[in-house]
Amino acid sequence: MPEMMDTPRPTPVNDPPRRALGRQLLVDLYGCDRGLLDDLAYVRQHLMAAAEHAGATIIDAHFHSFSPCGVTGTVSIQESHLSIHTWPEHLYAAVDIFTCGDAVDPWRAYETLKAAFAADKGSAVEIHRGRPDLQ
Amino acid sequence: MPEMMDTPRPTPVNDPPRRALGRQLLVDLYGCDRGLLDDLAYVRQHLMAAAEHAGATIIDAHFHSFSPCGVTGTVSIQESHLSIHTWPEHLYAAVDIFTCGDAVDPWRAYETLKAAFAADKGSAVEIHRGRPDLQ
Repeated sequence: MPEMMDTPRPTPVNDPPRRALGRQLLVDLYGCDRGLLDDLAYVRQHLMAAAEHAGATIIDAHFHSFSPCGVTGTVSIQESHLSIHTWPEHLYAAVDIFTCGDAVDPWRAYETLKAAFAADKGSAVEIHRGRPDLQ
Repeated sequence: MPEMMDTPRPTPVNDPPRRALGRQLLVDLYGCDRGLLDDLAYVRQHLMAAAEHAGATIIDAHFHSFSPCGVTGTVSIQESHLSIHTWPEHLYAAVDIFTCGDAVDPWRAYETLKAAFAADKGSAVEIHRGRPDLQ
C-alpha cells in the first residue's frame, strides 16, 4: 500500500516540540534536609553544580539568606537561568531550571538537586516556552 | 433545615489555594518591540519597575546582553524573584514572576511588562508552588 506512505504520521507524544525557544523544569523538592536548605554556602554550591551537570555555562550567581530562615538564589547561565527558594521550616524547596538549546539537559540538574538536598519526594514538570511560529 | 448548615461547602473553583507557599506567573510576551527587547538598560529598568509595581522589595538585579542579540535578567526580591529572557529576533520574551506572601500582586508586574514591551499578545499562567501540607 504505497499510497499510505504519504499519509502524515501522527506526532508521537514523546516527541518534544523542538521548535520551542526554551525548556523550563518546575521542580518541587519535599522532605529535604532542613539544615541543608538553610545553609547558604551549601545551596550556592549545589545550584551551581546542578547548572554544570546540566552542561550549562554559568555567567553569575547570587544568593541571599532570610530571617528567620530560608535561602533564595539565582544562577544566570548562557542558556537562561536556574533559581531556588527554600523553606527550611517546611523541608521544601522550589527550583526552576530554564534552558535553551540542545546542548543542555535540565533533567541532569534536577537529579543533582534532588540528591543534594536528600529529598524524600521530588517532582518536576517540563514546560516548553516560546512558540512564535504558532502565533 | 438547620442540619444542612453543618454540611461542608464545596470549595469554589475560584478560591485560590492560599496555603501554597509561592505563586508563580509564567508569562509569554509575543509581538514585542524588537529594539526594546534588545536594550539592556530598558529591560533592566522595566523588570525592576514591574517588581516595584507588584509591591515587592528588590534585593538585587543582574542583566546580561548576548551576541548577536537578546537579554537575560534576574531580579531577586524579598518575596522570591523575577526573571526575563528575550529573543528580539522572534519579538518574544519569557518572563517568570515568583512571589510569596499576600502583600505582593504578581499580576501587576505582568501588566507593567506587557505594556512596556508593546506586546501584541501576552499570556500568563499562574502556578501555585509548594503544598507541604498535602505531602
